[in-house]
Amino acid sequence: RIMRPDDANIAGNVHGGTILKMIEEAGAIISTRHCNSQAGEPCVAALARVERTDFLSPMCIGEVANVSAEITYTSRHSVEVQVNVMSENILTGAKKLTNKATLWYVPLSLKNVNKVLEVPPIQYTRKEQEDEGKKRYEEQKLDRLETKQRNGDVIFPIINPELHTVGYSQSSLIHLVGPSDCTLLGFVHGGVTMKLMDEVAGIVAARHCKTNIVTASVDAINFHEKIKKGCVITISGRMTFTSNKSMEIEVFVDADPFVDEPRERYRAVSAFFTYVSLSKEGKPLPVPQLLTETEDEKRRFEEGKGRYLQTKAKRQAQMQQAAQQ
Amino acid sequence: RIMRPDDANIAGNVHGGTILKMIEEAGAIISTRHCNSQAGEPCVAALARVERTDFLSPMCIGEVANVSAEITYTSRHSVEVQVNVMSENILTGAKKLTNKATLWYVPLSLKNVNKVLEVPPIQYTRKEQEDEGKKRYEEQKLDRLETKQRNGDVIFPIINPELHTVGYSQSSLIHLVGPSDCTLLGFVHGGVTMKLMDEVAGIVAARHCKTNIVTASVDAINFHEKIKKGCVITISGRMTFTSNKSMEIEVFVDADPFVDEPRERYRAVSAFFTYVSLSKEGKPLPVPQLLTETEDEKRRFEEGKGRYLQTKAKRQAQMQQAAQQ
Amino acid sequence: RIMRPDDANIAGNVHGGTILKMIEEAGAIISTRHCNSQAGEPCVAALARVERTDFLSPMCIGEVANVSAEITYTSRHSVEVQVNVMSENILTGAKKLTNKATLWYVPLSLKNVNKVLEVPPIQYTRKEQEDEGKKRYEEQKLDRLETKQRNGDVIFPIINPELHTVGYSQSSLIHLVGPSDCTLLGFVHGGVTMKLMDEVAGIVAARHCKTNIVTASVDAINFHEKIKKGCVITISGRMTFTSNKSMEIEVFVDADPFVDEPRERYRAVSAFFTYVSLSKEGKPLPVPQLLTETEDEKRRFEEGKGRYLQTKAKRQAQMQQAAQQ
Repeated sequence: RIMRPDDANIAGNVHGGTILKMIEEAGAIISTRHCNSQAGEPCVAALARVERTDFLSPMCIGEVANVSAEITYTSRHSVEVQVNVMSENILTGAKKLTNKATLWYVPLSLKNVNKVLEVPPIQYTRKEQEDEGKKRYEEQKLDRLETKQRNGDVIFPIINPELHTVGYSQSSLIHLVGPSDCTLLGFVHGGVTMKLMDEVAGIVAARHCKTNIVTASVDAINFHEKIKKGCVITISGRMTFTSNKSMEIEVFVDADPFVDEPRERYRAVSAFFTYVSLSKEGKPLPVPQLLTETEDEKRRFEEGKGRYLQTKAKRQAQMQQAAQQ
Repeated sequence: RIMRPDDANIAGNVHGGTILKMIEEAGAIISTRHCNSQAGEPCVAALARVERTDFLSPMCIGEVANVSAEITYTSRHSVEVQVNVMSENILTGAKKLTNKATLWYVPLSLKNVNKVLEVPPIQYTRKEQEDEGKKRYEEQKLDRLETKQRNGDVIFPIINPELHTVGYSQSSLIHLVGPSDCTLLGFVHGGVTMKLMDEVAGIVAARHCKTNIVTASVDAINFHEKIKKGCVITISGRMTFTSNKSMEIEVFVDADPFVDEPRERYRAVSAFFTYVSLSKEGKPLPVPQLLTETEDEKRRFEEGKGRYLQTKAKRQAQMQQAAQQ
Repeated sequence: RIMRPDDANIAGNVHGGTILKMIEEAGAIISTRHCNSQAGEPCVAALARVERTDFLSPMCIGEVANVSAEITYTSRHSVEVQVNVMSENILTGAKKLTNKATLWYVPLSLKNVNKVLEVPPIQYTRKEQEDEGKKRYEEQKLDRLETKQRNGDVIFPIINPELHTVGYSQSSLIHLVGPSDCTLLGFVHGGVTMKLMDEVAGIVAARHCKTNIVTASVDAINFHEKIKKGCVITISGRMTFTSNKSMEIEVFVDADPFVDEPRERYRAVSAFFTYVSLSKEGKPLPVPQLLTETEDEKRRFEEGKGRYLQTKAKRQAQMQQAAQQ
């Protein structure tokens, strides 16, 4: 579809969250279709995880987004989908790869949302495809367990914070879950949640550097808990790390089932977003250093630095590999 | 994309206007891409006309709409696009043709909106394709001239109207044109206008028969006049004709360039929509007869009857032809 | 227009904020049209104030909202508009008055947003109309000065609050101002701001009483400061008073012009919203008493009680007057 002014910031760059939402919708369609392809209990595929994804080039108002999705692996209870987004300038015909994403879906019964159904297996053209898929499946399973434990943290409000401290830019947003946010099962689409997360992370980044910012990448996101229609969700973000030209922001989503539900507020999702600051010509700008004050902030900064260096090393290894081939 | 609750009426049937909007967006993308395919002045394709289109089967919330578009003819200054919409139930895998539409676009220069550019010709696989396209082109050209003359009529409000009279159900809606309603040229997308027209026509139909109604067809619509960002548009609808099971509604769109423009209010578009009334099981219900009072109403009723009988005769001829083949 | 699922809460009642937004749009259109009716500098009418408005009966999904607007007074630099909203059930034909609102607009030059232009005078049919309008004009002028001084207050976050305290239900929301939120001048529509205020106030009310709630009334709102496209706005709400069956919530809107602007965060608007809690049958439910802890909270509770008793007395006087006529 054509990108509209409402999809973009005032510099005309399409929000990363808008792209994540399109990706998730494409993934939900292809995996729901696949899981219902054999006669049996009808089901809806629910997003369980999105792998780390990089935004390779910014998309602009007036460009057309081409989204294509393919199922690349199936385990007994989950489906791996690969989604590619190309941006196309229909005036010049120029096309660019905007990003590639890998998503994991789980089929939930339409009659009983707590029942996970079996996934019909796909055919692989080569045996290695299945083996590599299985390896990816095992890796993400491990990683999901890890984040499940990390989920307890809370963002405390800070009064009169100093410029460039964590407290200065931290932000939160509440949203009442409406019918258009939900799947047929009455639970929030993963894509809607990611769009709101990107919105908060973008405000944190803009408050910190007061310039035009764009989403550079999103770390793997695990959806451990569903969010029901009628909930109020609180999305909070705080900056954890800055390199010379990038900012890492941690985002939490908490759900409050406040009408007709005995349940307490719970943590539904958390994730790390990375942003860069762009000049009017689209060049990356230096980012003000984050000032850490408490022990926790210093620890999180070091952890962020670890993730940053790891990603950098991985990318260099890939480039060397590509150069050798 | 997946159909959401906001795309549908309270019975869960997707609004005809939502489908028209998707069709027009697909047509605008493919024709803008084609018109810019040769190096030259960049341009945006603007909707000039939509041929009569029938809604063959209702689409529901949760279904996926598959929209495909193809260029079928090019004249020197216009492009004919054929768009098909399939609704897919991704739970059962069932697919149905929802409607086929034919749209005409004209390339307007990005630098000078009043300049119509030349269209690169397409290749035809058979000579007859070109001849048939040319015939369609000439026919629509004639028809466009005709509606241009018809455009003067105005809907007057009626106080305390009787049930089932024209005045009882006539309705109007005003809308302030915002940035997301517009193309890169700053003019309203034809699809946005058609969606609003369908909304008003639907209210007229529901007021008349007080049941669940769905769009059955839309007569050819000609877009003679562009509507600029910042205008206020008034969309008015009145019933012109009822058969036993259908209602015909005439819709007018008037634009008011009320800030910064010396121009008076003008008629931008007008069209006929046909609705049917459906029972809870999706069966067509009888429609109350429209009570005509004035001479003009009686004349419009007869004209509507003429269109109704002509369409019916055409459809029967097609079915006979199909049966003979 | 027809009320959609996204316009309403999960019980099907249309949000007060949706109605306020429609009212403001109608007012902006009629007053901008009037102020441009004489040749002169083109201008856009900006909302300066909304008088107290009561929501007389809830509107539901599927109903049609009929909004009518009329200019009732003009001073040299401002326009008073009276807007009525009727809800119509198009299936039964039943119509109800939903609310009446009075709004004040000021014409700002399209070329220079800081220049207030002169308003063309309207014709009054009776001399008393002009005198009464002038009285209303003077009254609102006084009231605007008052709230301008009150505007300094800030909502501090509270950690681990007790149930039914002020801290327990207080909420805030951030919103990045996009192009669709803005007028031709690039400033936020008053109606968009009111919709967000109602959203926050509604969440505060629902958190307090954990039932289905609806907007009962909104006190006069003064728009002292414009909010520019690209700002981040923080909307915060806290409960100030509860009677047996109603809750009063104070809402603040703060704007942060964080990109390319030297200006500090500033208070743009503040207002009081009153909510009631409804049972499934639509009957008012008792509301849990608000627990006040600090001196400030106790003072605000007493002030809220004052407003509540004053409104009650006024309403009784009006009913007696009506009974005597």
